[in-house]
Amino acid sequence: MTNLELAKEDLRYIFHPCSQMKDYERLPLIPIKKGEGAYIEDFEGNRYLDCVSSWWVNIFGHSNKEINQALTEQAQDLAHVIFAGFSHKPAIDLSRRLVQMTPEPLQKVFFADNGSSAVEIALKMAFQFFKNRGETRDLFVSLNNSYHGETMGALAVSDTGLYKDIYQDLLLKTVQAKSPSLVPEEEALKDMERVLEENRDRVSSVIIEPLIQCAGSMKMYDPSYITALRSLCDKYGVFLIHDEIAVGFGRTGTMFALEQAGISPDFLCLSKGITGGYLPLSVVLITDEIYQAFYCDYNEGKSFLDSHSYTGNALACAVANKVLDIFEQDRVIEKNQAKIALIAQETEKFRKLSNVAEVRQRGMVCAIELKDYPSEQRVGLTVFQEALKEGVYIRPLGNVIYFMPPYIFTESQLRKMIDVTYTIVKEKL
Amino acid sequence: MTNLELAKEDLRYIFHPCSQMKDYERLPLIPIKKGEGAYIEDFEGNRYLDCVSSWWVNIFGHSNKEINQALTEQAQDLAHVIFAGFSHKPAIDLSRRLVQMTPEPLQKVFFADNGSSAVEIALKMAFQFFKNRGETRDLFVSLNNSYHGETMGALAVSDTGLYKDIYQDLLLKTVQAKSPSLVPEEEALKDMERVLEENRDRVSSVIIEPLIQCAGSMKMYDPSYITALRSLCDKYGVFLIHDEIAVGFGRTGTMFALEQAGISPDFLCLSKGITGGYLPLSVVLITDEIYQAFYCDYNEGKSFLDSHSYTGNALACAVANKVLDIFEQDRVIEKNQAKIALIAQETEKFRKLSNVAEVRQRGMVCAIELKDYPSEQRVGLTVFQEALKEGVYIRPLGNVIYFMPPYIFTESQLRKMIDVTYTIVKEKL
Repeated sequence: MTNLELAKEDLRYIFHPCSQMKDYERLPLIPIKKGEGAYIEDFEGNRYLDCVSSWWVNIFGHSNKEINQALTEQAQDLAHVIFAGFSHKPAIDLSRRLVQMTPEPLQKVFFADNGSSAVEIALKMAFQFFKNRGETRDLFVSLNNSYHGETMGALAVSDTGLYKDIYQDLLLKTVQAKSPSLVPEEEALKDMERVLEENRDRVSSVIIEPLIQCAGSMKMYDPSYITALRSLCDKYGVFLIHDEIAVGFGRTGTMFALEQAGISPDFLCLSKGITGGYLPLSVVLITDEIYQAFYCDYNEGKSFLDSHSYTGNALACAVANKVLDIFEQDRVIEKNQAKIALIAQETEKFRKLSNVAEVRQRGMVCAIELKDYPSEQRVGLTVFQEALKEGVYIRPLGNVIYFMPPYIFTESQLRKMIDVTYTIVKEKL
Repeated sequence: MTNLELAKEDLRYIFHPCSQMKDYERLPLIPIKKGEGAYIEDFEGNRYLDCVSSWWVNIFGHSNKEINQALTEQAQDLAHVIFAGFSHKPAIDLSRRLVQMTPEPLQKVFFADNGSSAVEIALKMAFQFFKNRGETRDLFVSLNNSYHGETMGALAVSDTGLYKDIYQDLLLKTVQAKSPSLVPEEEALKDMERVLEENRDRVSSVIIEPLIQCAGSMKMYDPSYITALRSLCDKYGVFLIHDEIAVGFGRTGTMFALEQAGISPDFLCLSKGITGGYLPLSVVLITDEIYQAFYCDYNEGKSFLDSHSYTGNALACAVANKVLDIFEQDRVIEKNQAKIALIAQETEKFRKLSNVAEVRQRGMVCAIELKDYPSEQRVGLTVFQEALKEGVYIRPLGNVIYFMPPYIFTESQLRKMIDVTYTIVKEKL
């Protein structure tokens, strides 16, 4: 079948995520036949460099042989079993490894299927922690320009209008503090302290995306903010929730963003890269103090009864264990440092272009913000289409072009990603 | 490793879903080494008949060879690709098949990862449909005793206190009408009409679990209620959302519960059995009218921008296609009728026991409600433990024992499931 035939069949039946379907009248909807390493390939043999890791998830390439084998082997034994009352080795191994890889206060792992569900679990658990002590703390604090997911609890703590505004009447009211990605750090901290002071005993937790507000135009900030925020949370007796769903697993240069701040959050939400772009899986790591607040005789009514049918899916856990193996055996974090430096060096030239407002980078994420294009023009779409012609797949967020490549990109693939984009920004807009 | 060693390791790191962790001090936490057909097997070679389909998902048995092969083959080509702007054949095939299997008004498929997320999508889309027309309809109507999931939107339309009560301060206020599973059908319909009348122009949709309120103690009701509810929704201009996450894919005797009512909902949420108990995947089928309300120029701001990273996961779609193949090639729905009749016949004897309040059945679900046991006694746990000794795994909901076997159970497996339980209820409680 041709691309066009499949696209037509697709559009007859499918409502795609995060899409205005009318856009597909003029933009190509590309049916992918296979993935291989850094490339995805359509039904006519065109290959595209997957420069956004298929929505920030695919870190070790498509059709990764080691991961495929782990998946196939696990399926022979056990694909899935109910995770209440039962368990399995892939989940136990994964949990132990995650606990050992993260700061000492994080001791227990709760499973779910996607990032939004992980955020909901952290929010519900933070709220219930206080409820179990007899306190009703009905407020969550998040940052301006934040994004934490699409389910109603996750949307409520988000602050990206594009995804949230239309649903305001449905959502829990939350409080936003100034973001260090938008104002100076000192101002952001002062505002956070004001919010915590004004809402004393009403706030259960503060949730942040550490270092990078991804869906929020890839705005970035320094780890020093997080270190200071940790102290503020301690001072006001509220939990700190790290939503490292997008930034975890090496994306910011360290395995987890929290390492750069030298702190431990009370909740750590992980997903996306955890299965190397293979399967939906998310986890929430919590402290023993939080765990103990739910540990009691059943009839006391303090249990945390959240569940999804596929919680702790064995196939996804086996894949995640293989992902962690690859991190170790290939010394990925260490080897990424050269790639990070290369990206920094090669994107330097964007700074001199008159239509570029800013180039910012944090580890394996680099964002190039364009200027002087009205949003209705949707200049990002032009960049997307022009890059595609060159076999490079990037997905700008409005006027912000970003690179979020899989860690298996070679030096020449990194250069191609950057150079193709550079030519477009310089000559085609 | 022994069961005990693994369980100890598990309890050191894992916080299990829908569990009071302290219960595992006296109840076994069973590590499963492998699944095979109707059985799951622990690390000491004990085998258990999986009578609840591993939380209502595993319909064609564990380590199903055909499904394993489909999974392995798909992994060779493509595990996953971003589903915005891109597509793949497994999702296209699955969507076409689902549209063709369901009533004609359901024309488009939106993907997500778990049931809760599917419910959130239906709720958001129903709300936004009216918002896109300039109307704010901030109320959702559901039934008493309903359960629709764990994320905050899904919890808000639920009415099972066990899961919801503690979070009331966080949740959107919704309206519940009387359930036909608890009061006579006529009374329930009258109450629904009252609710719709009193909240005219404020309700966007009514959401139900058709025929069986599963987490709500497996309470059941007749399809005639749904037929009448469809008319009421039309009369008041509100959408009908069928949450067939638990009951879809043959569980009630027909492929979908809606068939028994002879109607089409405006939204149909599916998950659980869709991947035969292998992988998290959910879909929401919608009418073309709904789809069109979001179809416009991007700058009009009416897009539905919901997404999860693993939306439309190719591995899960390939598995789902194989599940549909098995339904067709093995004429599963047709062959299940004899099993349904056998369950009805063999559970008849429970009715004569003095500690049984009711035996109710709808297709491949049969519930036995015990009476005269105070809830603090947790008699269900005794049933669970006694059955386990006989190699039968059942998971009572409070005082309600239920059977929800995979469709591959043989006649003798069905008899064993029932007879072991009968002896316990008659002699051990």
